[in-house]
Amino acid sequence: MRFSRSTAVTRQDERRWAANIGDQWDIGGHANGGYLLAIAARSMVEAVGRPDPVTVTAHYLRPGKPSPITIDVDTLRAGATFSTAGARMNAGDRPILAVLGTFADLSSYRSGPHRVDSPPPQLPPVEDCIPLVPRDGGPPFSGQVDMRLHPDDSGFARGDPSGEARMRGYFRLRDDEPIDTLGLLLAVDAFPPTVFNAQLPVAWVPTVELTAHVRSRPSPGWLRCEFTTRFVTGGFLEEDGEVWDADDRLVAQSRQLALVPRG
Amino acid sequence: MRFSRSTAVTRQDERRWAANIGDQWDIGGHANGGYLLAIAARSMVEAVGRPDPVTVTAHYLRPGKPSPITIDVDTLRAGATFSTAGARMNAGDRPILAVLGTFADLSSYRSGPHRVDSPPPQLPPVEDCIPLVPRDGGPPFSGQVDMRLHPDDSGFARGDPSGEARMRGYFRLRDDEPIDTLGLLLAVDAFPPTVFNAQLPVAWVPTVELTAHVRSRPSPGWLRCEFTTRFVTGGFLEEDGEVWDADDRLVAQSRQLALVPRG
Repeated sequence: MRFSRSTAVTRQDERRWAANIGDQWDIGGHANGGYLLAIAARSMVEAVGRPDPVTVTAHYLRPGKPSPITIDVDTLRAGATFSTAGARMNAGDRPILAVLGTFADLSSYRSGPHRVDSPPPQLPPVEDCIPLVPRDGGPPFSGQVDMRLHPDDSGFARGDPSGEARMRGYFRLRDDEPIDTLGLLLAVDAFPPTVFNAQLPVAWVPTVELTAHVRSRPSPGWLRCEFTTRFVTGGFLEEDGEVWDADDRLVAQSRQLALVPRG
Repeated sequence: MRFSRSTAVTRQDERRWAANIGDQWDIGGHANGGYLLAIAARSMVEAVGRPDPVTVTAHYLRPGKPSPITIDVDTLRAGATFSTAGARMNAGDRPILAVLGTFADLSSYRSGPHRVDSPPPQLPPVEDCIPLVPRDGGPPFSGQVDMRLHPDDSGFARGDPSGEARMRGYFRLRDDEPIDTLGLLLAVDAFPPTVFNAQLPVAWVPTVELTAHVRSRPSPGWLRCEFTTRFVTGGFLEEDGEVWDADDRLVAQSRQLALVPRG
């Protein structure tokens, strides 16, 4: 239960929670952005009393370093079905993350008009995909999650990018820890950047903003994920994500805006 | 200059702005969501001292009715290039909109790695497109903007939807008022819902959340827009937008999450 333990929050007062950025979630000196968002969202879930994020947006203000943090939550509206809140994550007195989110109870799948015009990611069987464990052991983060890349998208790691700005693969937490809707916030920001496959001189892509929509709680088992980028322009790129569960349901969509420094 | 006048804001104190929801921007009893977002973003631009939204997210809490409003802005970070702020729009003491945004100066197009994998919307010449003026005169909003729909996407208005969850067309402000980056926030929420073309029993799609990314200031002239929906599931749908300028540049991307009540 590394993920749930590593994202645990403790209420301090009416609107403040305390947590800890663990050093196992680091990638290149910054805590993973989905991990930080999950901590903030957990505080917001507690504040509004609704268990599932429906749509959450995070703006990344400063790198998250392993340290104690606080999360201040303001509930903006509590309606019949949805609650909306804003949150700020602070390290000392410096804000590192700002979040705005709407929450609900997604335990019962809402019925109604239904239409799906795009298929789940087409992946080979899990055993034919490539575990994402860099040869040098990799950053601490890679030990916390279990990701298996589509073979066609895995060449970048050996200097052979596919040429398509795309990453596809399976995702689960280590030790097959069950994934709830907060875990989906980790899944949408866990894979290597799409542009690593794009044959562009880009070595890192700091996230400005990440938005995740959650459609449903995922069923148990591997998640299938696909991330694509269509526009690298003006010094920015978008990265669009889809997460599908073992029952072939779209459970989350994401989009992030990232900066494109020269590599 | 209807748009700039209708979205004008007046500073009241260190962190509060006053404005007015005009009755010309109404659609079915609610002020247009992009219009409300533009008012909030204008307050945030003044607060942070940076002229262009880069990424802004709005959560819609209550319908905006014609009335005086206030906008409270908190600047969360002012960096070397970007500033991030949160805002709350209030009618009386009730919040109607919550916004989180990052702002910059986009007057100089940032160079760097460039890759565009998707073309602009393919539209017939403007004169062959269909002005979006419903036969009954339509809601007040339709008098504020000038939209011309792709003929293939315009059949829904006469009960003949295309079958594809898509809306494409040209957009400009009335009297060819120049569009700045705040005007782009209007453009991304102005067209009829994509699902009107989807042959689903859906009569209205209230927005839960709208995120817009701005890549560049638009050049003068018609904007070309395309909105698509791929997933109507779990009681929600996403609507993805692209806005291109006359120089064939992607100037904005948007995604909103909307509710799908039965029609």
